[in-house]
Order: sequence, then structure tokens, then C-alpha cells
Amino acid sequence: MQLSKIGEFGLVKLIETKCAASSSDVIAGIGDDAAAVKVIGNKFLITSDMMIEGIHFDLSFTTFYQLGYKFLAINISDILAMGGNPEYFLISLGIPETYKVSDIKELYSGIKKIGDEFGVSVVGGDTCASKHDLTLSGTLTGTAKRIITRSGAKEGDGIFVADTLGDSAMGWHLLRKRKKKVKSFSPPSHRLKLMKKHLMPQPAQLKNRSRITSMIDISDGLLIDLTHICDQSRVGAIIYRDKIPVSGELEKTAKNLKKDPLKFALKGGEDYVLLFTAPRRYKTDAFKIGEIIRRGRFIVDSKGRKTTFKPEGYEHFVTTQVQSDKGT
Amino acid sequence: MQLSKIGEFGLVKLIETKCAASSSDVIAGIGDDAAAVKVIGNKFLITSDMMIEGIHFDLSFTTFYQLGYKFLAINISDILAMGGNPEYFLISLGIPETYKVSDIKELYSGIKKIGDEFGVSVVGGDTCASKHDLTLSGTLTGTAKRIITRSGAKEGDGIFVADTLGDSAMGWHLLRKRKKKVKSFSPPSHRLKLMKKHLMPQPAQLKNRSRITSMIDISDGLLIDLTHICDQSRVGAIIYRDKIPVSGELEKTAKNLKKDPLKFALKGGEDYVLLFTAPRRYKTDAFKIGEIIRRGRFIVDSKGRKTTFKPEGYEHFVTTQVQSDKGT
Repeated sequence: MQLSKIGEFGLVKLIETKCAASSSDVIAGIGDDAAAVKVIGNKFLITSDMMIEGIHFDLSFTTFYQLGYKFLAINISDILAMGGNPEYFLISLGIPETYKVSDIKELYSGIKKIGDEFGVSVVGGDTCASKHDLTLSGTLTGTAKRIITRSGAKEGDGIFVADTLGDSAMGWHLLRKRKKKVKSFSPPSHRLKLMKKHLMPQPAQLKNRSRITSMIDISDGLLIDLTHICDQSRVGAIIYRDKIPVSGELEKTAKNLKKDPLKFALKGGEDYVLLFTAPRRYKTDAFKIGEIIRRGRFIVDSKGRKTTFKPEGYEHFVTTQVQSDKGT
Repeated sequence: MQLSKIGEFGLVKLIETKCAASSSDVIAGIGDDAAAVKVIGNKFLITSDMMIEGIHFDLSFTTFYQLGYKFLAINISDILAMGGNPEYFLISLGIPETYKVSDIKELYSGIKKIGDEFGVSVVGGDTCASKHDLTLSGTLTGTAKRIITRSGAKEGDGIFVADTLGDSAMGWHLLRKRKKKVKSFSPPSHRLKLMKKHLMPQPAQLKNRSRITSMIDISDGLLIDLTHICDQSRVGAIIYRDKIPVSGELEKTAKNLKKDPLKFALKGGEDYVLLFTAPRRYKTDAFKIGEIIRRGRFIVDSKGRKTTFKPEGYEHFVTTQVQSDKGT
């Protein structure tokens, strides 16, 4: 069924049926001028993200379900990165008229799946026509007992990452190769796992956050996002190549493709893994990859050679990207 | 200067400089993973809106300043329509790479202008590249002592509108005519006023809201938005053509163009004027245009003839619009 059959108000009703918030803290949800919610405590977090077809995603290799899942996932990751718990989601969609109602239903199924996993209620948004590209814009709120910003890193702190890095970037690389192929496609399971990491990232909360001094989620790449912490905390950093955690799947695939897995881990981006600083001997399951120093940004290789690193990774509007064909 | 010269992070810095929130209630603003704000009271409002080039606006007749102003204005209107006071704004922009830095600066100047008028702080958002169209997506928060939804209208209530209707729709009609002309253009002042109503709508708070039973802002047209109140309150409505307030400027222009001004007032949309219900003898400066009845939707003409009205106005994805070329 085409969207023109049900119209904007039909679509809003469909979304309401699919996503209606059941929490008693929602005073007014979808279908009013604004959502009204009760807030417990008085520290409120709010984040917005936008994804545009042809820039952030390619419908030739993602399903609408995966797209919805990922879109809420990256917003959840932002709230977790502030030390918060996600609560309410508003999603605005700009939809080309030729898209089907079933596409949008699938998109909302993906949103609902991860929303249920993290206790997030969809409380509103906006739906409108778009001339060219499917456009998603979302806002997620959250609350936090203690807010963790990017600006609290101190000299002597350890630098930690919560999970392996680079899988998503390699997954994206594989998906693009797949797109170019005409023949049928059945990759081995380790490659499928990397692609899934790109299509459906899994944000995860840290168990113990009490002594963390600064935090960010890695969306643009480790080197860029660590630079954000350094800039905002007015400190330097030293990291060790050998300590950057890389999955077996990434290692195996990179070896086959004659690529350096570390390039994906350092500059790839879209990991949605937490990067944080904490006292050097902080007890955590996360990987310690370096230390905060007074100034300068250094990376030490396996032979102990120290070089300066630059914030290379993904940045919008800049045409010479590490992944030069991403975002153009 | 092209955006590619300063890149995404340069743009974020520019926005930060232009809009940095000065309120001590903002714990973390632009430049972190999420904004963190203190909330007074525990009833929190949140609304999202999206505007896409070629659908919601046409850069051949709006300036970037006007666009920014209008974009925050329509979000403010949604918060006012819930009985709330607007507080924090997040804006996400999808920007084609060819746009200039000065365009985006101008856009933020318009946002800041109306933000200052209503005490709204810009606390975050997202900026990214867009393949085709400039896309704006905004989220505005607010607080309310008493939340006024669309669902509280009662049989016997009066129906009120806070200002004249139809100016914006006529302004849009004039702007489109202007666009088609090649020659220079200097319309009389009453026409300029109508165009300005379309380009820079002025939301306004009601002074006395204590006994209002339901409220909505007129964005899709009086007939559609009144139908929303009827549907959600499970009541009917009767309105009187003679009582629909119309400005002198609209009357004069409609007469010249041999058009019915009431058509613009009833179905035009984008007025961003508050429509509300309250006890019949409610003391207010607003215009009383009808009453809430048990069921049915009627309009009474100047000769006392009563006909049923349909929710005609503007709806996305529906190709047979009242303004048939809007949104396609």
C-alpha cells in the first residue's frame, strides 16, 4: 500500500497503534502538539540525531527494520555516553511519497525492538513528505544521577574502551563491496557478523560508572572522539597500538583482504562503543588503551616508537575522508 | 565560504559561538553527546518538527533568517498549545555541501532572534551533509503547571481562536505568484504584511489559561485542527462563518483577486494561532467562533444555513489537497 492511500493522519494513527507508550509517566503521547512526560529527579538529558538516505545509509544494503533499530541505537548510545538512562523518543520522518506503508511499519518494528530492550517509549515526532531522500531525525531524552561530560579527564587517568573497535567500519566496507557485486552473495559467518555490527550496533551501559571522569561514544572514530575529550578537558593523551582491542572476525577478514585492522579500529567510526577516562587502576571489564597526559596526542607502536596522531576519521562536509567515498 | 572549508566540527563551533546557552540551568550544552539541563517541576513537554526544502519552504522566496525564525516559531507554537512555556531547543540540520557558511549563520540568527523573544536556549542538535535538500529538524522542550491537551472539550463549551486566520495561506499564495514573475516586484504594504505572516509567523501565549478545556495550534487549517479536538474529545462542533475573524489585509487582497477570504481562513493552515475550548462565557480577548455539541461537525453560513464540514486542509502524502500544488 502506498502512503498516499492512508495519508499523514492515517500514518500517525498507525504509528500510535504500533508504538503507543504504556508508561503511566506519559501524560500525553503521540497525537498531541507536544508530548508531556513526568520527570523524576531534576537532571534531564536530551540528544538529537539525523540520518539521511544516501549519506548515512543505503537502502540497497539495509532493511527498514535494521535502519529503525540502528537509528534508536545511536541515540541510546549518546545518552549512555552521558552516564544516563534513556527514557523517551521522538522521531520525525521525511518520507518520499513512493515509499510503502509496510516499509514504515518495518522501520517502527526495528525502533520498537531496541526501545523495548532499553525501556524507551516512543512519545511523538512528526511525519511529512520528502522530495528526494528518506530522512530520519530523532530526539531521545534520559535522566542521570551523575552527568558525565567530555570535559573531566585529568592527567594520570587511564583511557578505556568498553568493547572491540573497527568491526562496524569493516562491516560497512564489506557491504559496499557486496553492493557492487551482481551475483548472489553468501559470505562466511565471521563476515556476516561484521556487517551486522554495522547495520545493528549494540550500545551497552557500563556496570560501574562511579569514578569515571569523562566519557564519549565512538561514532566518528577513536582518534577523533579521543581528541574531543582532550580538547574539552584541556589535556593530552597517549595510546598504545598493541592495546587497541580488535575482534577475531575483524583480524581474520582484514588479513584476507590484506588490510590493516588497526586502521579500521582507529579511524573507522560508527562503533557506538563507550570511550572513557578514569583513575589509572580503575576496576573494569573495559580495555585500558592509554593514559591522559598533560599535552600532546601520541600513539606508540609495537616497537615502542611514539608518533603524534591527528584526529582522522569521519567528518561531514569534508571531502577528503579516511573513507573517502563515505558521505559523498 | 563553502561548508567544506570549515567542516562539520568547524560548523559546530560556529553554532556554539552564535547560540551558546547562558542559563545556569544548562549543565552541558552544544558539543557533548547530549544536552543536560535542570528541570524545575516535574511536567515536561517535548515537541519535534521537521521542515524539508521543496516541501515546507522554497528558498526562492524565503531568506535563511526568515526560515530559522519560522522554524523555531512553529515549535514554540506547539509548546504554547499545550499550555506550556518553551525552554530548550535542539536543532538538526541536513545541509547540501554547496551551501555557504553565511547561509547557516543567517539561519541561526533567525533562530536566536525568536529564541531571545521567548527565552529559549539552543542546547544542541546535529549537523550533517544532505544529498539534495536542506532539512531542518528541531526539538523544543517546555514545562507547564497545567497541561492542556486536545481531549478535554465538553459539550456546551465555546470554541475560540486567539487571532485572525488565513493571512498566512494568502501570503503563501502571493509569494508563489511572485516567484513566477520575472520582473521586479514591489507589492503594496497590505500584501507584504500577509507574506510576512507566512514567512515569520508570530506565536503568542494566551494571558489567561485557567479554565481552558482543550487547545491546539492551527497548523493544518481550522477545519482539520478543530476535527482533531472533536476526535480526541469525542464531541461535535458547530461554527459560524460570520464569526471567523479575518484581517482587513486578507479581505482587501481576496477581493482584488476575486477569491473567498473564508476559504483561506477555514482551510489554509500555517496560521500558528491558538484554537481552544472553554466555558461558553469565558472572559478572553480571543474570538468566539462556535460551540462544542454532542456530535456532528457543522458550519452555519450568513443566512443561517447549516451544513456538515469535512476536515479539509493540508495533509502530507495526500495528492488532492485544497492547495493542490502544496507539498508536491
